[in-house]
Amino acid sequence: MTTLHQLGEREVIRRLAKLLPGRADVRVGIGDDVAVVAVEGGHRDFLLTSDAVIEGTHFLPGAAPEQIGHKAVGRVLSDFAAMGGEPLWALVDVVANRDMPLKRLEGVYRGAAKLAGKYGLSIIGGDMAGGPELQLHVFGVGEIPKRSAVLRSGARAGDVIYVTGALGGSLAGKHLSFEPRLEEGLWLRESRWANAMIDISDGLATDLGHILEMSKVGAEISADAIPVSTAARKMKTGRTSLEHALFDGEDFELLFTVSAEKQPGFESSWKDVFKLPCTAVGRIVKAPRGIVLVDAAGKKKSLKDAGYEHFSG
Amino acid sequence: MTTLHQLGEREVIRRLAKLLPGRADVRVGIGDDVAVVAVEGGHRDFLLTSDAVIEGTHFLPGAAPEQIGHKAVGRVLSDFAAMGGEPLWALVDVVANRDMPLKRLEGVYRGAAKLAGKYGLSIIGGDMAGGPELQLHVFGVGEIPKRSAVLRSGARAGDVIYVTGALGGSLAGKHLSFEPRLEEGLWLRESRWANAMIDISDGLATDLGHILEMSKVGAEISADAIPVSTAARKMKTGRTSLEHALFDGEDFELLFTVSAEKQPGFESSWKDVFKLPCTAVGRIVKAPRGIVLVDAAGKKKSLKDAGYEHFSG
Repeated sequence: MTTLHQLGEREVIRRLAKLLPGRADVRVGIGDDVAVVAVEGGHRDFLLTSDAVIEGTHFLPGAAPEQIGHKAVGRVLSDFAAMGGEPLWALVDVVANRDMPLKRLEGVYRGAAKLAGKYGLSIIGGDMAGGPELQLHVFGVGEIPKRSAVLRSGARAGDVIYVTGALGGSLAGKHLSFEPRLEEGLWLRESRWANAMIDISDGLATDLGHILEMSKVGAEISADAIPVSTAARKMKTGRTSLEHALFDGEDFELLFTVSAEKQPGFESSWKDVFKLPCTAVGRIVKAPRGIVLVDAAGKKKSLKDAGYEHFSG
Repeated sequence: MTTLHQLGEREVIRRLAKLLPGRADVRVGIGDDVAVVAVEGGHRDFLLTSDAVIEGTHFLPGAAPEQIGHKAVGRVLSDFAAMGGEPLWALVDVVANRDMPLKRLEGVYRGAAKLAGKYGLSIIGGDMAGGPELQLHVFGVGEIPKRSAVLRSGARAGDVIYVTGALGGSLAGKHLSFEPRLEEGLWLRESRWANAMIDISDGLATDLGHILEMSKVGAEISADAIPVSTAARKMKTGRTSLEHALFDGEDFELLFTVSAEKQPGFESSWKDVFKLPCTAVGRIVKAPRGIVLVDAAGKKKSLKDAGYEHFSG
C-alpha cells in the first residue's frame, strides 16, 4: 500500500483535495497561501489559514516558550502578509502533556499574544487536549478588499523577482523569532506593485516553484544576486551558504514579482518606505517552466527542488 | 511547579484567556461553544470554532477511517448547532505518521467530506505535518443573523430544561457516528424557543454546569426523566445507566432551556417538525447555583460534576 511518505506532502494534498465538496463563495481554495472566501453583502473578502507548530518538527523540546508562541502566530501572520491581507481573529488548538508546567504554557501564550497584539490579531478561542508532545494549531481569519488578494498565480513573463531580507540558516534562530512581513505585504498590495506573492516557508526554490506552477511560467535567478544571510554563511553543514539560501525553509520573507516596466519606480518607492532590504534576484520567463540558476560566468543550470516537505526525506 | 494536570482544563483555559489581547468586534470570546464576531457592514455575525480529534483520546487506532473524519467534522458542526448557526467553511490540520497508507487518510477525508457536504460546509484548506499519531484539527466558520446566537448565558429561573435524543454510552459507537443536530439547533434559534443552548460534548452534568455558570443560575433535574440510551443500559462498567447518561461525554445532543410559559407550544411544535425525541428533564432555579438531582421519591441530592476533562482524571 502506498504510504504518505512515498507520495510526499504535495501529492497527498492533491489527492485529498479531490475528495472535498466546494461552495460557490470560495474564491481561492486549496493551493495558495490562504483560502479566500466572499463575504455576502460586504466589500471585503475573508482570508482563512491554519498552521501547525509541533515539538520535534517545528521546534526542539528546549525552545523558549515565548518563541514557540511567537512562531505559531507568526506563521499565520506571514500567510496573511503573502496575500497583502490584514489579520482579524484566531483560534488556537493546543495539544500538551498533562505534566507540563502551567508556567511554560503561559509563556507560550505570552509569546503568541505579544505578536498577535502587535498586528491586531485577537485570539478568541480554540480547543485543548492531552498528548505526548506540545503542538499548537493556529487558525487565522484575515480580511482584504474584495478580489484584491495577491495570489501565487499572478506572475507574468518579464516580471522581476524580489525577496525581502536575507535568506538561509533560519534554523540558527530566525525560525523562532522572525518578524512577519505584514506591513510590507499590505503596502505591496495597496500600491499594486506585486503581481504574485508568497512567503518563504519551505525555501526560496520550493516557494518560487509554487509561484511558477500556479502562474504556468518559469524563472531565471542569478546566484550572485541572492541575499545570503549571515546565519547561512556561518552554518557548518557541508552545504554552501548559497544552498542554504536556496533551500532552507522558515525564513518567512516575502517573495514576489513586479512588472518589468515598474522596476525603477518600485525600487525607489520601497527605499522611501522601508529600511528592510528588498533584492531583485531574477526574472520570470515564459519557458522552460522550472527554475534556472545563472552563475557569475553566465552559466545556466536547472535547479532541482530540494526544500522541506513533510512526510518525505 | 503547578502542572496542567493539577489545575485541570477549565482552570488552565481561564488562566490563558487572561493573557490574550481583544478586539472591539468580538461579541463572544473564550467561554461559549463558539466565538462570535461582528462582520463589518453585513447583517450577519460569523461563528468561529475549532475541535481536535486525536488518536488514543478521541478514537482508538483501530477505528474506521470514515468514522474518524465524520467525528472531526461532526464536532465542529455540533458546535454550530449549539448556537443555532449555519456552517460555511472549514480548514483541517492533519498530523499523520509518514508510514500511514494513503488509502486510510483518503478514508478519513471521505468521511469528513460526506458529512461536510450534507450540511453545506466546504473544506478549503489546512496544514499537514508528520507526527507519531493521527490528529485532525478542524477549524470551522459559520454564520448567524447579527446578534442572534443562542448563548450559554441565556437561561432564566423557571426555564424548562430539554435534551434531544437519548444519553449515555456513546463510547459503544455513537461518539464516532453521531448526527450533529444542526436542523434542530437552527429551528430552535429561528423560532426563538431556546433561551440558552449547548451541545453535550463533556456529559449532561458538565455541560448543564456550563449553562448554569454562564447564566448564574441553578438547576433541578429529575432522575426519572433523563432519557437513557440503550447503549448506556448495556454498558458493563460498574456505573449505573443513569450515571452513564449524566456523566458520559460525546453524545452531541442539544441541551437547551425554554421559558416555562412556552412549554406546551414548544412541545407540540417540536413533535410537528421532528421525529427525534426531545425530553424535559428539569427546571432552571435561582438558587442554589449547582445541579440538584431529584429522585422518584422526591429526594434531592447535589450532583457533583464528573464529566470528561482533558489533563485530569
